[in-house]
Amino acid sequence: MARGIAFKIEATDGAARTGQLVLPRGVIRTPAFMPIGTAGSVKAMYLDQVRVLGTDIILGNTYHLMLRPGAERIAALGGLHQFIRWSHPILTDSGGYQVMSLAALRKLSEDGVTFQSHIDGSTHTLTPERSLEIQALLDSDIRMQLDECIALPASTTEIERAMRLSLRWAERSKAAFGSPGGRALFGIVQGGDDERLRVVSAEALGRIGFDGYAVGGLAVGEPQTTMLRILEATTPAMPSGRPRYLMGVGTPDDILDSVRRGIDMFDCVLPTRGGRHGVAYTRMGKINLRNARHADDPRPLDEAADWPPAHDYSRAYLHHLIRAGEALGGMLLTWNNLAYYQRLMDEIRKAIAAGRFDDFVSEVREGWARGDLPIL
Amino acid sequence: MARGIAFKIEATDGAARTGQLVLPRGVIRTPAFMPIGTAGSVKAMYLDQVRVLGTDIILGNTYHLMLRPGAERIAALGGLHQFIRWSHPILTDSGGYQVMSLAALRKLSEDGVTFQSHIDGSTHTLTPERSLEIQALLDSDIRMQLDECIALPASTTEIERAMRLSLRWAERSKAAFGSPGGRALFGIVQGGDDERLRVVSAEALGRIGFDGYAVGGLAVGEPQTTMLRILEATTPAMPSGRPRYLMGVGTPDDILDSVRRGIDMFDCVLPTRGGRHGVAYTRMGKINLRNARHADDPRPLDEAADWPPAHDYSRAYLHHLIRAGEALGGMLLTWNNLAYYQRLMDEIRKAIAAGRFDDFVSEVREGWARGDLPIL
Repeated sequence: MARGIAFKIEATDGAARTGQLVLPRGVIRTPAFMPIGTAGSVKAMYLDQVRVLGTDIILGNTYHLMLRPGAERIAALGGLHQFIRWSHPILTDSGGYQVMSLAALRKLSEDGVTFQSHIDGSTHTLTPERSLEIQALLDSDIRMQLDECIALPASTTEIERAMRLSLRWAERSKAAFGSPGGRALFGIVQGGDDERLRVVSAEALGRIGFDGYAVGGLAVGEPQTTMLRILEATTPAMPSGRPRYLMGVGTPDDILDSVRRGIDMFDCVLPTRGGRHGVAYTRMGKINLRNARHADDPRPLDEAADWPPAHDYSRAYLHHLIRAGEALGGMLLTWNNLAYYQRLMDEIRKAIAAGRFDDFVSEVREGWARGDLPIL
Repeated sequence: MARGIAFKIEATDGAARTGQLVLPRGVIRTPAFMPIGTAGSVKAMYLDQVRVLGTDIILGNTYHLMLRPGAERIAALGGLHQFIRWSHPILTDSGGYQVMSLAALRKLSEDGVTFQSHIDGSTHTLTPERSLEIQALLDSDIRMQLDECIALPASTTEIERAMRLSLRWAERSKAAFGSPGGRALFGIVQGGDDERLRVVSAEALGRIGFDGYAVGGLAVGEPQTTMLRILEATTPAMPSGRPRYLMGVGTPDDILDSVRRGIDMFDCVLPTRGGRHGVAYTRMGKINLRNARHADDPRPLDEAADWPPAHDYSRAYLHHLIRAGEALGGMLLTWNNLAYYQRLMDEIRKAIAAGRFDDFVSEVREGWARGDLPIL
């Protein structure tokens, strides 16, 4: 691995592992969940709060930050950490995924992708080299190669074309990354829903050599069974001594299933986006506070949870805030959801260390299966 | 005054006074600024934060709360204080002002006002009796009579008609209020921009007898000089031993001028609404963080201010958050603005107590006149 970085697996339980990814700006306890700080803010949260919930690392979106406020501007202001006031590790994505999902008039070539900003229509080009240059300007701790992430279903020919292109971009990304020391570069396994292509991609990336390996192009609409089938084929082909990051995943249930298949890192918009739309993640499962059943309910979301949004406020109040469009509704539910996710990750780590991960998963799922409190 | 309530003037300086309005749920230090908790939330703030800034009382809007979630529902849930988790005093308005500004198909009669909800079009009637009933269901600490607030300019005939109607509603409001003990009822002086009618209204309300007296129908678009002229004529006609509340006012400058004319209480959306739109109130005056001059500015908003949003974050970051529509921008600027307002009120109280209110006003205005930091 790069100078100043170490990944220590402290315990395994089946394919599940727990350990530490040690970076100069801080230690990431794995399995880890990374809240999304899209445009320099974990939406509706103070970063001090995010930290206190047990967050070791957050994710910043290169696409958003390059367009506004701009990577050169952030660099001139001292880098992303100083800009947003977060002194702990930050992972930045390559920008490629959001070019594909958000930008207009995309044009893909061997060199990279040209697109128009969704904000002001201005034209930009993202190549493997420019993506790594932007991530260096942001001075993120973990940087991602540029890849091409295609939608599923797709033909094997198309999946293989995108995977091969991503491999060539992986080599260019590694060259562009250089050897900054104390900063990590992750390659991204592609290959759609084809196990054979996934293995080809993982093994080729391993030969190039990265500080960590991500699985991209999953959780893009395919059934969970497909995702798990691909993971099962892919993770054994990924270097076992390096962190494995499943991009954009997922629900608490997805996380349990993926940890069981050897994944160490996750990011997902669900707890933050869901919170702003009235969804609460709890040990009783997912609860939609918009539902009229909560309108007169004086009970807290979950009195057994020890974070304020779950035990200090009535469901009736949370319901009201969400229905009335009050910002506080999103603030409280995002807080609850990130607290729930980070607590889950902490319990996952402890269960693996104790060699009881399967039992733990069963207990968590029993709680979800029992469901919400009975209606009053 | 009602049982369990006291108003103690501790010092005066010219017409300015400082003291305490003592209610069972807490002491309100005057002159006081009441942040707006429109629909059961001071927008983009946790109420714990609002309290820590030195807030003794917040305002709830009867119009919003009666429509959603409904006064009877809030009562069943233990009242507004329990519903929103604020154990300190709350003032509720009568609902009349927002019927006039927000509701559709308003129909005014001697009895009250019938209107359609701006949320779902449902029809409601607000009479003096129903307004006080709603405020009792909310169990607010200070309740307001229903009045008719007309837009200026208006003819003397129209101003007098609305003022006389408001006086008749004042009598009905007092009867409907009853004698709940520990709760206060305020009458509202009307009379537009006509000094004579203002004095008639103030004296008539004094004869009816209230726990406090508000000045309504100002800051509705008229020049500041008109507002101050009316205040100068009105406050001497208001009972001096009772708190005087200037509704919907105002800028920090308005507050200084109104305190000087004997006003004790204020509420205004400016610090909260302004914060969500990029406006910061500071000792250097009003600063618009949307302005491009801040885009590359690493300096804090005001390093001399001792609240986090003013000294921990760069102007460049605040500018970015506001431009990007990130909720955190509104959260931080609202926090700054309420901190600035409450600090200003605290300094006003101390200056009056020290008999140096005029000097204090000059110092504050000198700071505003010096303006913002020079451009980098």
